[in-house]
Amino acid sequence: MLLGSVEAGGTKFVCAVGDENYKVIDQETFPSKNPKETLQRTVDFFKRFPELDAIGIAAFGPVEVRLNHPDYGVITKKTPKVAWRGINIVDKIKNEINVPIFLTSDVNGSAYGEYVSAKSHDEDVESVVYYTVGTGVGAGIVIDGHFIGALGLQEMGHVKVKRHPADLAFKGICPHHGDCLEGLASGPTFDARLGKNGKEVPITDPTWDIMAYYLAQAAVQTTLTVRPNKIVFGGGVMSPEFLNMIREHFADELNGYVDVLPLEEYITMPEIENNGSATLGDFSLAKKVVKVGEGHAFAIDR
Amino acid sequence: MLLGSVEAGGTKFVCAVGDENYKVIDQETFPSKNPKETLQRTVDFFKRFPELDAIGIAAFGPVEVRLNHPDYGVITKKTPKVAWRGINIVDKIKNEINVPIFLTSDVNGSAYGEYVSAKSHDEDVESVVYYTVGTGVGAGIVIDGHFIGALGLQEMGHVKVKRHPADLAFKGICPHHGDCLEGLASGPTFDARLGKNGKEVPITDPTWDIMAYYLAQAAVQTTLTVRPNKIVFGGGVMSPEFLNMIREHFADELNGYVDVLPLEEYITMPEIENNGSATLGDFSLAKKVVKVGEGHAFAIDR
Repeated sequence: MLLGSVEAGGTKFVCAVGDENYKVIDQETFPSKNPKETLQRTVDFFKRFPELDAIGIAAFGPVEVRLNHPDYGVITKKTPKVAWRGINIVDKIKNEINVPIFLTSDVNGSAYGEYVSAKSHDEDVESVVYYTVGTGVGAGIVIDGHFIGALGLQEMGHVKVKRHPADLAFKGICPHHGDCLEGLASGPTFDARLGKNGKEVPITDPTWDIMAYYLAQAAVQTTLTVRPNKIVFGGGVMSPEFLNMIREHFADELNGYVDVLPLEEYITMPEIENNGSATLGDFSLAKKVVKVGEGHAFAIDR
Repeated sequence: MLLGSVEAGGTKFVCAVGDENYKVIDQETFPSKNPKETLQRTVDFFKRFPELDAIGIAAFGPVEVRLNHPDYGVITKKTPKVAWRGINIVDKIKNEINVPIFLTSDVNGSAYGEYVSAKSHDEDVESVVYYTVGTGVGAGIVIDGHFIGALGLQEMGHVKVKRHPADLAFKGICPHHGDCLEGLASGPTFDARLGKNGKEVPITDPTWDIMAYYLAQAAVQTTLTVRPNKIVFGGGVMSPEFLNMIREHFADELNGYVDVLPLEEYITMPEIENNGSATLGDFSLAKKVVKVGEGHAFAIDR
């Protein structure tokens, strides 16, 4: 079996082909420029593999993933990437590479990879939530091998949180909501608060603690709503030190109200190395559409 | 088929028996006094129906609902009802009424009833979230006929929310979290804020608007996480006027970021009359255990 993956990110595309054990056979990474050029390069990559069985696509967005929706495959008008608004990222690939396609969000792809990986060493794992903290904040949810969302994808970066007392003057940077989670805890909030990139801000700066407080609240919301086996934090802003700050605030905020696994197992960074979570997730989702056939609405159908 | 329901509430128990079309045949309501007396009266009620096929129980809590958990059926130490801490509410019924039992939370029972009802006039309904706003705040989730929660039940009343600018001095009343949703928006917060019962507070009092702001944030969190077809608000604090205030704040806070159904369909009060949501849900869950047999872990298994 030959499985394809497109990790369609806001800054780069990662195309890969792997075997049925999810071992990467070939991979190509290129910047997300204009849609036409980027999608052409994606198609050119897969044309080199005439034996391909299926492709999993994990796309930036918001993107419409409901198979029965007239806009299936379309990046919506809410995307910050203006050139991609209204672009259908499935059609071009589908027309030129005639295999079943499974489409989900970038974060759902990563969530699926981490779910498959966690399940490989613990059969009892049922659900995984994956947050990415980078240019934006987003999250994916896998429950028992399925995604959820009767009306479309999760957009958990845009929830409201209790403001940190030392951060009340900051208005937040989300163009839609101001001080939602993404508006308060995404990477660019460093520039907005301090006038410099987060990479230049030492971990001892109180801004990190403020952001950890907000992300911990998101983890508490998820814990009390989904009761997952595991919450994974990935994305360019994350580091082991920052993760520990999130764990500490999480413990304070949850205050033992419900049981979770020990925090070093419950709140983690991705266990798949080299940003490979989405690629592994895509391979696994591609494998499913080989079996069930396209049109099976697996994206939403539980 | 003869189906049983126990709505085990914090203030009263409602026991009922119905037919396979969920029509109530007999019903008895009595206060939740000490556990021994209350559970005995529950058993006495069902003993009158030797043809009973199964019982659905929707219980206050927190309660352990995972069938494979050693504390299955036990009301946990976090419950505010001191006399019920550590009490197993399944064992007594199971020992004296020998039928399969399905146990879930009070709010999941209500969510299930509203899900069954919504689905009866719209086959496409996939998921329903049910909030109760009364002595406490809680919520249940049904997705495609199943509950979720790898590590146990939802406790969505205890999430944090952004504080209303006119309410910053109020510390909240949750003994575990202070100003979590329940600590800010449950019925007894009227007494804590104004020194009188909510029933005596006119809907024009700004406290109602503050509470609507908090509950609207919970609805936004749920919308962005679960993407349900419908969010139902029930419980003693709710009224059509208050619901409208929640809808208005919801529209402001979501700011059109994702599509939802028209708000008069999306955010509603229970469509089952006379507080019958949990009873209908219990009947439907009881019917399922008749079919699949007890021990099928339907509570968690999707």
